[in-house]
Formats: sequence, C-alpha cells, structure tokens
Amino acid sequence: METKDLLQQVGFIKEIDKLKYIQRKTKLFNSDRCENDAEHSWHLAMMTIILAEHANQPINVLKVLKMVLIHDIVEIDAGDTFLYDTTKSHDNTEEELLAAKRIFGLLPANQAKEFIDIWMEFEEGFTEEAKFARSMDRFEPLLQNTSNNGGTWAEFNVNYEKVYNKKKVIENGSRSIWNYAESLINDSVEKGILKK
Amino acid sequence: METKDLLQQVGFIKEIDKLKYIQRKTKLFNSDRCENDAEHSWHLAMMTIILAEHANQPINVLKVLKMVLIHDIVEIDAGDTFLYDTTKSHDNTEEELLAAKRIFGLLPANQAKEFIDIWMEFEEGFTEEAKFARSMDRFEPLLQNTSNNGGTWAEFNVNYEKVYNKKKVIENGSRSIWNYAESLINDSVEKGILKK
Repeated sequence: METKDLLQQVGFIKEIDKLKYIQRKTKLFNSDRCENDAEHSWHLAMMTIILAEHANQPINVLKVLKMVLIHDIVEIDAGDTFLYDTTKSHDNTEEELLAAKRIFGLLPANQAKEFIDIWMEFEEGFTEEAKFARSMDRFEPLLQNTSNNGGTWAEFNVNYEKVYNKKKVIENGSRSIWNYAESLINDSVEKGILKK
Repeated sequence: METKDLLQQVGFIKEIDKLKYIQRKTKLFNSDRCENDAEHSWHLAMMTIILAEHANQPINVLKVLKMVLIHDIVEIDAGDTFLYDTTKSHDNTEEELLAAKRIFGLLPANQAKEFIDIWMEFEEGFTEEAKFARSMDRFEPLLQNTSNNGGTWAEFNVNYEKVYNKKKVIENGSRSIWNYAESLINDSVEKGILKK
C-alpha cells in the first residue's frame, strides 16, 4: 500500500466531514430539529441492512450501502435540493456532476472512479441496487413526516398527488415496503395531515 | 415477507433516530461543534469502505460496515462514555448489554440475534472484522483532535502516554494506518498540542 494513497484517502475523509453541516428540510422523528445529510445517510444505511430482505429482486447489499452512504456527498458543493422544489430540479445536475468529480477526485484514481460510477448508478436508478437505494431515500422522509404531523408536507403545502407521485418509486425497489408506504399516505389523508 | 416483521423493523428504524441526539466529546474537524453518534457512525462507515484495503488480513467489508453502523446504538440507553474517562470503564458494561437486548430486541428475532451477535463481536475485538472496525473507531477522533489543535486531549488534559496506549490498538486492524497514526501522535507532541 502506497503512503501517498493513504494521504489522499485521509484528505477525502476530512473533506466529507462537511456533509454534517448540510441541512435537509425534513426533521428528525417527533422533532423540530432539521436532519443533516450525514445523519440521513447513516439512517439509510441502517434501513438498508434491516430492510434488504424486502427487495423485489436479490440485491448486493454492500453496493447499496456504498450508494446510500455516498449519495449526498455532492451536496457539499451543490447544496440540498428539496424533493418538492418547484424551481430547481432534484435530478442529477451539471453542478452535482462537477461536485462528484471534485470531491471523489480527492481519492486515489481507482477509488475515485469507483465512487463516481456508483454515484451515477444511483442517480440513474436503473439497476436493482439503485432502485432499492432510491426506495430507502424516499421511505425515510415519509416515516419522518408521518411522525411529525405532516412535517414538510404541511410546511411547504405539498398535496397528496405530489407526495404519491414522488413516493411511488418505492415500489421499484420493494413492493411490500410500497404497500406499507401507500397505507401511511392514505392514513395521512384521513388524519388531515396531507391534503387531497 | 410478513407484514408483522416490517412493522417491527419500522419500530426499530424510528427508535434508533435517538442516536442523533447522543453527543460525543470529540468535535467536528476544524470546529467547536460536538459530533453526534449518528454522524460518527456514518463517518466510520465511509472510512471502512475507503480504507479496507489497508487491513492486515482480508476482511468481510459488509460485516465491518454492520459493526460500525450499529456499534454505538447501545448508547441510546447507556450514554456515551469518553475514551479517557477515569471513573467509568469504556468497555462493554452490563448497562450496554441490557441496552443491546432492549433496542435490537425491537427487531424480528432472527435480526435481533444477528445484531446482538455482531455488536458483541465488535466489543470483544477478536475477529479480523472487529479489529478493523475498532481501528476505525480509534482513528477518526485522532484525525479530529489533530485538526482541532489537540481537541479533547487539550480539553481534558490527556497526555501522550494515555493517547499512545489507547491508539495503539489501531495496529491490530492495520499496520499501515497505525504507522501513519503514530506519526500524527509524534507530530502532535512536537507541535505542543499533546503533552509528554
């Protein structure tokens, strides 16, 4: 192992500490404190190892873990975009691609390539691993909002139809989790914390 | 897949949100803001996937990831114990074992057993995976303290000998990371941010 590689890796480890300062719109469970991207990424990793057995197809859990652990690192440069933002797309932007190249580019070349590839695979969402990782990313804030009396749905006036359309991709990763998620959405309408 | 299992898993996912409120003594890099256990666990997971190639022996990376992601969950009940605490042992305590049984016990029985076993394997530190996971757990605060002008060493009057003895276990997981860690400790003495 080259010492040079280790020094580059330590440089990256220090740089990604900044993810702990990137605030999301969603709040912790039963809380009014915003979650940050590092906490969110840890929670998705935990959800992945616990819920992997619900995946529609067999998945490589290690790969999904890498995806969810790194998926928001680009936000160190590009910032967090709210899922229901009406002026800025949440999809893979040129700004995020530049961020991926700069930040993962701090690593030794082979790892930089591996991480950029995994991040793009997640963004594209075609593979079984990416579908499941994206399910986790949509499922956590749904659990948070239903625990927070509507949370960001109430705060930003997001209605049932928008929520349903954004959350339906959970089904691509796991039909059983989607069935449960759909029941939570319907319950939220009944409780009046999500408007039709 | 049983719906009952999914409901238990969601109960666990909500419970472990509390890890985001458990404050550690160490601070973020170049910062005076304390790190919390969820952020710390995320950072160890990132370090694991980046640094696994430095392990003394081949390791099962997925297992190490599970270890570092869950290793502090018992602190939801038992609280964080400072590595250099002089009145309370940092080792596996009865209090932590009760916490493991209560919190992991929220999961379906087979997963509860898997997680308690993995947590105990980490605590015992005998396997290659546990040795490497423990290296990561000691390496991160070393990087933080050297970035923070001595950090908790200065704040709590911890001297070179105590730091050296606690950090030397890094060698059990990775000799190359330990070589680098040792040089950081020696540099800290030279810079006057760690007292002999």
